[in-house]
Amino acid sequence: MARPRSERRAELERAATELFARRGYHAASMEHLAQAVGLRRGSLYTHISGKSELLAATVEHGAEAFNRALDEGLAAAPDDDRMRLREALRAHIGVIAATPDAAACFLWEWRHLDGAERERAVALRDAYQARIRELLEDGVASGALRGDLDTPYAALAFLSLGNWSATWYRPGGKLTPAAIADRLFAVLAEGVGTS
Amino acid sequence: MARPRSERRAELERAATELFARRGYHAASMEHLAQAVGLRRGSLYTHISGKSELLAATVEHGAEAFNRALDEGLAAAPDDDRMRLREALRAHIGVIAATPDAAACFLWEWRHLDGAERERAVALRDAYQARIRELLEDGVASGALRGDLDTPYAALAFLSLGNWSATWYRPGGKLTPAAIADRLFAVLAEGVGTS
Repeated sequence: MARPRSERRAELERAATELFARRGYHAASMEHLAQAVGLRRGSLYTHISGKSELLAATVEHGAEAFNRALDEGLAAAPDDDRMRLREALRAHIGVIAATPDAAACFLWEWRHLDGAERERAVALRDAYQARIRELLEDGVASGALRGDLDTPYAALAFLSLGNWSATWYRPGGKLTPAAIADRLFAVLAEGVGTS
Repeated sequence: MARPRSERRAELERAATELFARRGYHAASMEHLAQAVGLRRGSLYTHISGKSELLAATVEHGAEAFNRALDEGLAAAPDDDRMRLREALRAHIGVIAATPDAAACFLWEWRHLDGAERERAVALRDAYQARIRELLEDGVASGALRGDLDTPYAALAFLSLGNWSATWYRPGGKLTPAAIADRLFAVLAEGVGTS
């Protein structure tokens, strides 16, 4: 019995996420995709219009993962804006550790999209970044963070710490993703300089 | 008159740096390289043994650029370890702004190397990272930086801020690369938390 269309589509999206993240979007061919899911190349087009549609879908999945993790982290966080920010970094690095390929598509491979698909990816990224910036602004307002904080660049610094971990994090290390997040967060929160 | 072999080789390395950085290593074919330098595909092999040799060369060039910029920045820096660290971030982001393709090969594309070429790339990256960590340790020793600083994670944070800028920096923005470095450095030095 043929599998339902939606199941095949989900399988294609999973295969695309892995291929795009590991080989890079341009190096992942329709032929690779067809092989990964056991279809003939021509049959792919009954499921998708082309490769960029799959990249756009992987970016959506990545955005959902980061937003959901942030929702869950904040729901469980103490009512202290500094701790909420630490929880946000744990959530962010947790997604990278748990689903590195989807994270790589959201963080990196989206650049290969064009037109409306690219605009959508940029909007998803902007919305997530705005949530981080808002956490920082809340912390400034409540007095948990520095009153003179440069929030746009602090948000950029926060995201740099989180995002760059996608390039070096490997499972099975001494520290859990949460412990890595906490050590990076301590540097970000306390600063390297003498106060 | 045929161009000297060394000149052709340098031209190939430049073309490879651009192709690897913009399309990704796996998507940059020998055919693309041949077209970029106006040679037939088969003729490339009189100059190089294969694509990975070119990637290894681009990584060397990237490492040279980062180390040279750091040398020059530190030579001109005031005798204050906090200011020297800021100068190091200016140098790092300056290389990314000035030679983004070589930077991308050193920071990112090196992962596609194998065997001895990969070991060499890792050694070059480790050596550069050790220089950053040493700057932090000097700062702790001199009292310019926090005495209880987690220097390995502070080095990772420093490099995350610098390296992630390779994904978002665009020329022609409102801020110079040095001004961007200074704003990021202020966040890193002072921290986001209240002291």
